[in-house]
Amino acid sequence: MSTQRIAIVGPGLLGGSIALALRGRPGFSTALWARRPEAVEELKAIAIAGYAATSLARVVRDADLIVLCTPIETMPALAREIVDAARPEAIVTDVGSVKAPVVAALGAIFRGRQRFVGSHPMAGSEQTGLRAARADLFRGAVCLVTPEAETDPAATATVGAFWETLGCSVRQLSPAAHDEAVALISHFPHLLAATLVNVVAGTSADAFAVCGPGFRDTTRVSGGAPDLWAGILAANAPAIHRALDATIAKLQEIGNILARDPTDPAIHAFLTQAKTHRDALRSPPSAHV
Amino acid sequence: MSTQRIAIVGPGLLGGSIALALRGRPGFSTALWARRPEAVEELKAIAIAGYAATSLARVVRDADLIVLCTPIETMPALAREIVDAARPEAIVTDVGSVKAPVVAALGAIFRGRQRFVGSHPMAGSEQTGLRAARADLFRGAVCLVTPEAETDPAATATVGAFWETLGCSVRQLSPAAHDEAVALISHFPHLLAATLVNVVAGTSADAFAVCGPGFRDTTRVSGGAPDLWAGILAANAPAIHRALDATIAKLQEIGNILARDPTDPAIHAFLTQAKTHRDALRSPPSAHV
Repeated sequence: MSTQRIAIVGPGLLGGSIALALRGRPGFSTALWARRPEAVEELKAIAIAGYAATSLARVVRDADLIVLCTPIETMPALAREIVDAARPEAIVTDVGSVKAPVVAALGAIFRGRQRFVGSHPMAGSEQTGLRAARADLFRGAVCLVTPEAETDPAATATVGAFWETLGCSVRQLSPAAHDEAVALISHFPHLLAATLVNVVAGTSADAFAVCGPGFRDTTRVSGGAPDLWAGILAANAPAIHRALDATIAKLQEIGNILARDPTDPAIHAFLTQAKTHRDALRSPPSAHV
Repeated sequence: MSTQRIAIVGPGLLGGSIALALRGRPGFSTALWARRPEAVEELKAIAIAGYAATSLARVVRDADLIVLCTPIETMPALAREIVDAARPEAIVTDVGSVKAPVVAALGAIFRGRQRFVGSHPMAGSEQTGLRAARADLFRGAVCLVTPEAETDPAATATVGAFWETLGCSVRQLSPAAHDEAVALISHFPHLLAATLVNVVAGTSADAFAVCGPGFRDTTRVSGGAPDLWAGILAANAPAIHRALDATIAKLQEIGNILARDPTDPAIHAFLTQAKTHRDALRSPPSAHV
């Protein structure tokens, strides 16, 4: 079995964790691109990848699989460089948290050249950057792979197998179905956590300061990078807005019951329903994966 | 220095954790009450306290400090038994999550007999019961102690010192201020997490099933016991409703911006504000304390 050559474009939390997960693993070689020369020096100093450079053309030239690990806004410009530099047999994927606009933009750029399949490994935390990278970041995480109708099934299979190598459990969804689902389970909950933090801190700084472990967990994601999340919210706004409207409607419904009769059994039933759903979620293998 | 005799009324997560924290500690003896004989047998089998019985009168008879660790609904009936059984010098506290109605009810029962001071140690998790009890549950947690204007300062000091012994950081608040603050940082966030779970699971079971670590943390508290939380929501409904209204208003505000222009810098500013507040929270010593 020959070595699979992986080019990782962007040395942040996800790109860095891919490199760490593959370091020293038989059957893989890695090349890692960073924009800034100082970043490349750091990558070389920690020997995180077989090759590291600021030249995107050199990093992707021999790759079998190219993984775009930058913020979604910067992906199209990088993809246009990759089209001319990479082998025609190369398969390209990305790790963006929004898929329909990314797949549309990158799919159009790679069409008739390399094969592109979108991915979204649902790992990570509120931390960002190489320093938060971990070799086991993907272990036990779900990775959503989002082929289009016309995507080559062999390319989809290669991308899926890659994420499984890193320990992910892989599911396929269309880009549109992905964005609708992830608005519900990630994008809107992020906005909701930020809203709760701003309401509580804005209402009572004293109360905010004495919060307990429950509040910390409920709001942990709001510590995420505003640049990254503003881009995500902008790219998936309609689906996020639908989740927001549904949540406001449900809050008003339960608020009306609470105002009318706080001992109404409907409140107990509402809490029981939530607990039943929540208890059914399988436990993650560790707190941050 | 003489031994301080602690009576713990109720062997659940909090009562059990107090007993475990004091087990073998010089200067303390413990007696633990449980309603059911089988529960007392279990307490004896694990030797969690110096004495365990179903007779409340026997458990509290010699106590210096009596800690009520049952659901708030059952506290008044237990308090009426304690009044006649305990020494007049005894100090009584409780661990209820709502303070104004509890302090009003128990304060009236103990007035002119034992001295009562309310407490709320903000420790615990979505788990309940003796099996979740831990000797270090209170270490690093905030405990809010809620004297009334007429409460004997010596009793307040004794209760505060007791929680400090267990590792808590103690703050004083009036019962009304406590309920307003805790509605914001605990009671409403619990209802919000339950709402998010019910919205997401009700909209897309498929999406719910693939959620990542962020969603799990955001909704962890909704796994709490419905009996306990329905009681808390009922006992503090007006303050919870104020937090709910403020959150709906803020969600509508950010939703309107998102609908009008998803790239509006106000969204980035909103996320930055939330991150700044959230980053300012001191880290807890462990994930569940």
